[in-house]
Amino acid sequence: MNNQITVIAFDADDTLWVNEPYFRETEDKFAALLEDFMPRHSLIVELYKTEIANLPLYGFGIKGFMLSMIETALRVTMGKNDPKVVEMIIELGQEMLNKPIELLDGVEEVLKALHGKYKLVVATKGDLLDQQRKLTKSGLDHYFHHIEIMSDKQEKDYQKLLKHLDCNPESFLMLGNSLKSDVLPVLNIGGHAVHIPYHTTWVHESIDHTIEHPNFYEMESLSEVLVKLIE
Amino acid sequence: MNNQITVIAFDADDTLWVNEPYFRETEDKFAALLEDFMPRHSLIVELYKTEIANLPLYGFGIKGFMLSMIETALRVTMGKNDPKVVEMIIELGQEMLNKPIELLDGVEEVLKALHGKYKLVVATKGDLLDQQRKLTKSGLDHYFHHIEIMSDKQEKDYQKLLKHLDCNPESFLMLGNSLKSDVLPVLNIGGHAVHIPYHTTWVHESIDHTIEHPNFYEMESLSEVLVKLIE
Repeated sequence: MNNQITVIAFDADDTLWVNEPYFRETEDKFAALLEDFMPRHSLIVELYKTEIANLPLYGFGIKGFMLSMIETALRVTMGKNDPKVVEMIIELGQEMLNKPIELLDGVEEVLKALHGKYKLVVATKGDLLDQQRKLTKSGLDHYFHHIEIMSDKQEKDYQKLLKHLDCNPESFLMLGNSLKSDVLPVLNIGGHAVHIPYHTTWVHESIDHTIEHPNFYEMESLSEVLVKLIE
Repeated sequence: MNNQITVIAFDADDTLWVNEPYFRETEDKFAALLEDFMPRHSLIVELYKTEIANLPLYGFGIKGFMLSMIETALRVTMGKNDPKVVEMIIELGQEMLNKPIELLDGVEEVLKALHGKYKLVVATKGDLLDQQRKLTKSGLDHYFHHIEIMSDKQEKDYQKLLKHLDCNPESFLMLGNSLKSDVLPVLNIGGHAVHIPYHTTWVHESIDHTIEHPNFYEMESLSEVLVKLIE
């Protein structure tokens, strides 16, 4: 791997710790609350439609997800839902916000090995306070220069991040589980990117083509990064 | 004023542009929706209690405010509200997210004069995407090195900001309308702070004592900053 790299940015959700399975679990509970009105799979489709429609307004994160669940429930039941349903949706969201952090394999070992040799940052989407709280709960915060919560992960957002870090693209390496958010935009602006797939990916994050690029590295686990960076 | 200053951070809401009046306006509309259940002033007290209880979980910003309005409506009506009420609360919140930006007097003039002489940043609480969108809409973004959305504005949060900016406290000046959030914590960590009061302040941001400190400056309008920085 390129030895010009000075800054390594880590995606957080499903790269450092478990996240997506909690959303899927909550979606299932949401659908169960409303199954008298619509089959489960259709409810999940309706919820996804609401989420995508609200994304430009709410951005990513659990609070917007809660608001989209409430809006979907009102639409699907045409106001005929038990008022308890909205209350239970708020509880589901609050449960998500209070989840413990489950680190993925190899994370701490990798951070320990890279700490002091590179400037390490967290670069993640989601709600500000929620992501900061997760980082604190994870016990990993002392490895990072700072956490950068991004409202989106498109090329312009990475350009802003690099400007902010005073870092050239060729000195920047991004690691994450999403080809769409963590890999493609970084390669497109001249950076380096490592993809570490996670078993569950939100459909909004999926892309349907393969990537071939000299600055692109596909890895099975985060620990491989250490081997590649020493090479 | 101290000539060691290299970084000037601006609070955004009610320092660069109008914000708090929109919250007060929405609270009034919220109370009007539920006035069959409780007098308006009691509804506003109930809403405030919900907001404060949820602050550690949701943080600052409109999405959390929307969730707190919904929760308050459910509690106050004990589930007997018209289901339309929750729908209308969501609309109220979405209206807030779509408000145009109304710059405060002198803002552009001050930024133009300071730009290039200091590193200018926005340091604000609130929802990430919402604040970024407001900055873009304001047309002021090119004056700033970046926008820093803070989950809170306590001493530790400013310490994190300074570390992140690689800036010493004595080289840092914060300007804002809140003594509690923009002034006190900054003075306490050794920085400089300017208070520019705004006619409406959220009760959560108010403090009940006066400040005397060599690094503290009280101003009537942002334009005074230019005079003081030249002195």
